[in-house]
Amino acid sequence: MLHLYYTPGTCSLATHIALEEAGAQYEATLVDFRSAEQTKPEYHAINPNGRVPALVTEEGILTESPAILLFIAAQFPDARLAPFDDPFLLGKVQEMNAYLSSTLHVAHAHRFRGYRWADDEAAIKEMSRKAFEVVETCFVHVEENLFAGPFAVGDSYTIADCYLFNFTTWMEADEVDLTRVPKLHEYRERLKERPAIQRALAAQKV
Amino acid sequence: MLHLYYTPGTCSLATHIALEEAGAQYEATLVDFRSAEQTKPEYHAINPNGRVPALVTEEGILTESPAILLFIAAQFPDARLAPFDDPFLLGKVQEMNAYLSSTLHVAHAHRFRGYRWADDEAAIKEMSRKAFEVVETCFVHVEENLFAGPFAVGDSYTIADCYLFNFTTWMEADEVDLTRVPKLHEYRERLKERPAIQRALAAQKV
Repeated sequence: MLHLYYTPGTCSLATHIALEEAGAQYEATLVDFRSAEQTKPEYHAINPNGRVPALVTEEGILTESPAILLFIAAQFPDARLAPFDDPFLLGKVQEMNAYLSSTLHVAHAHRFRGYRWADDEAAIKEMSRKAFEVVETCFVHVEENLFAGPFAVGDSYTIADCYLFNFTTWMEADEVDLTRVPKLHEYRERLKERPAIQRALAAQKV
Repeated sequence: MLHLYYTPGTCSLATHIALEEAGAQYEATLVDFRSAEQTKPEYHAINPNGRVPALVTEEGILTESPAILLFIAAQFPDARLAPFDDPFLLGKVQEMNAYLSSTLHVAHAHRFRGYRWADDEAAIKEMSRKAFEVVETCFVHVEENLFAGPFAVGDSYTIADCYLFNFTTWMEADEVDLTRVPKLHEYRERLKERPAIQRALAAQKV
């Protein structure tokens, strides 16, 4: 059986949603960042770089959200979570997920985790200060250039929606001016009504 | 016909390699960073966030290396550049590419492009200083935890190799201690002999 390691408030929500959308049988274990469980040997045996999500499968362990999401889409083809028969659209799904992971999520991480890229306290504080502006620029780029509508890459709900929805739940905390991202705001409110998303949110008690 | 926009010395080499491995018909245009072509309206019409690579297809434009690479693998199935029939291995391919794009490449970017995440000059300098150490830690993580051997995710050459090879060509410039990454060092020297990689390097005059 699949086994998800997750932490509420992180990008592991996307994997939780995808497992629910796919109708997968899985177990889920909370990795408690408040007691720094992600830094302990027990969790490093699952993911040596101490991040969530991680998905334990019968064939081994997968990390990195865009990878886990594509695995779920491929493992549960009946759920039609990725357009494997359409190379260009498949590329658009991964374009959204790659941008979210390598640019938007990274911008967000500078608010709390500047120590990854600097030791000096003043530098870390400066990154934290600027993060709000950078994150907003990323959301506006998604709104204006990447988001197709009504779903992330067009007419069909895909794993890009599991991931994009996850990040849109951070917009208020990141102090994004919602008047600059009206499509994403409407999108998030609409997707909140999906039963799979409601089950994932309830499971994480978010 | 496919049209690649690339800049020598960037991660666009991976897409160039994948197109050569696939035997694709394509044109390639250099985006000259020395004259800041990536910031001009002509290039923003291709990629609004001003980065390379971008791949113009008959159906539209794709950005983000992990996405473009997956598109090429799906569009040219005979080249067998991604294991679409094996969900777990497909996940491993995307795990490598997601880690490279969202963690290793981001760490590298702090050496030159700290202005993305800070305005203060001292903070930018501090990120640049620490970048060498962070990048080395990333390469060691790939060496010890992600690299399967003899290719990136195992016995078959995939799009994860197009991308991983690209980054290994930066190891000396990033001052990575090669004695800490012996497998990646041997791997890079071995992959340099592949005809498709030699053609891509020659096309970019690297």
